[in-house]
Amino acid sequence: MTKVASPRGVVRERVLAAALELFAENGISGTSLQMIADRVGVAKASVYYQFHTKEDIVLALMRPVFDDIARLVKIAEAVDSAGARRDVAISGLVELAVRNRDLTTVFFGDPAVDGLVRSREEFAAAVDGLNTLLLGASPDDQTRVAMSVLTAGIYGTAINPHLADLSDDDLHRLLLETMKRLVTALCSGDSSGPAADQVDQ
Amino acid sequence: MTKVASPRGVVRERVLAAALELFAENGISGTSLQMIADRVGVAKASVYYQFHTKEDIVLALMRPVFDDIARLVKIAEAVDSAGARRDVAISGLVELAVRNRDLTTVFFGDPAVDGLVRSREEFAAAVDGLNTLLLGASPDDQTRVAMSVLTAGIYGTAINPHLADLSDDDLHRLLLETMKRLVTALCSGDSSGPAADQVDQ
Repeated sequence: MTKVASPRGVVRERVLAAALELFAENGISGTSLQMIADRVGVAKASVYYQFHTKEDIVLALMRPVFDDIARLVKIAEAVDSAGARRDVAISGLVELAVRNRDLTTVFFGDPAVDGLVRSREEFAAAVDGLNTLLLGASPDDQTRVAMSVLTAGIYGTAINPHLADLSDDDLHRLLLETMKRLVTALCSGDSSGPAADQVDQ
Repeated sequence: MTKVASPRGVVRERVLAAALELFAENGISGTSLQMIADRVGVAKASVYYQFHTKEDIVLALMRPVFDDIARLVKIAEAVDSAGARRDVAISGLVELAVRNRDLTTVFFGDPAVDGLVRSREEFAAAVDGLNTLLLGASPDDQTRVAMSVLTAGIYGTAINPHLADLSDDDLHRLLLETMKRLVTALCSGDSSGPAADQVDQ
């Protein structure tokens, strides 16, 4: 303990960690700032000093993930073929979902989160960029459904409590292997798929 | 309006419909019996007369779905080949998830629901039967991950708000087509897959 340590930063990190625990236990709607303060063991005013609303806490937890998505989009957009761009997006999503298993568990499928994402221009831009990588510019309905299955499959598997016995490394390897086979199946020999430029069988 | 109409049955249906709306808006944790009573426009005591706890309401909403799952398991178990049993389970899940899009939206991924399912022996038995159909008796980790991707892909696509423009019929057709291609990709030419008895390429 030195004077250099920042109590403000420490409380902030403890609030975020406690909020993530409580969101996992009760959902975001079922968690209050008071519950978060109680879990940290500080007064509600101390939480309020860091975050004025519960939404601010959710956004602070989500920001690093969306920063990663924005970087992934930037990297993938520099790739020439549409098929390769989609492959980068898929393997990037697998990496993100597995590395952030605890966050994915809390945020995936929560009705409040979609609205929050849409309310932040930079988050919405990252999601839109990712969707364009996965779907192409004007996807048909079959492509939209197929890509929904793949992305929901990634997120849903990262948060599957029945796979909690798998280490992050094992889950990453097995999920990536699965996705490669699935993407090949969906995008090969189908002229309507987003990777039609890549495959000709 | 005749004397034959049952006010008790009518209130019960209105409570269930209001609860489903509120669960979709606020999550299960974020919904109280009082909120449900307010939405129906009755006193809390009238709700309490039908359902003593919020969990009773959740169970009443889930019961028809689990009855359907139990029937699906019974039908599929009578099929001889493991591969065909798995195909029946997948197409049954697609039908269930799309027909119950509103219920799937509320219940899929809610941390409270998994515990409730486990607490009811008949629900847990239906889920275990379905998992055995999908996975076989002693699945390896690759099979567990692959089947998690397929089932999460089905549920996650049925609840995807970005596909709300698709009719139930269109979504069912497109999702089933997608799943057939994916199942073929995962289960063909892999001796470790649950359908290894079926395919030899």
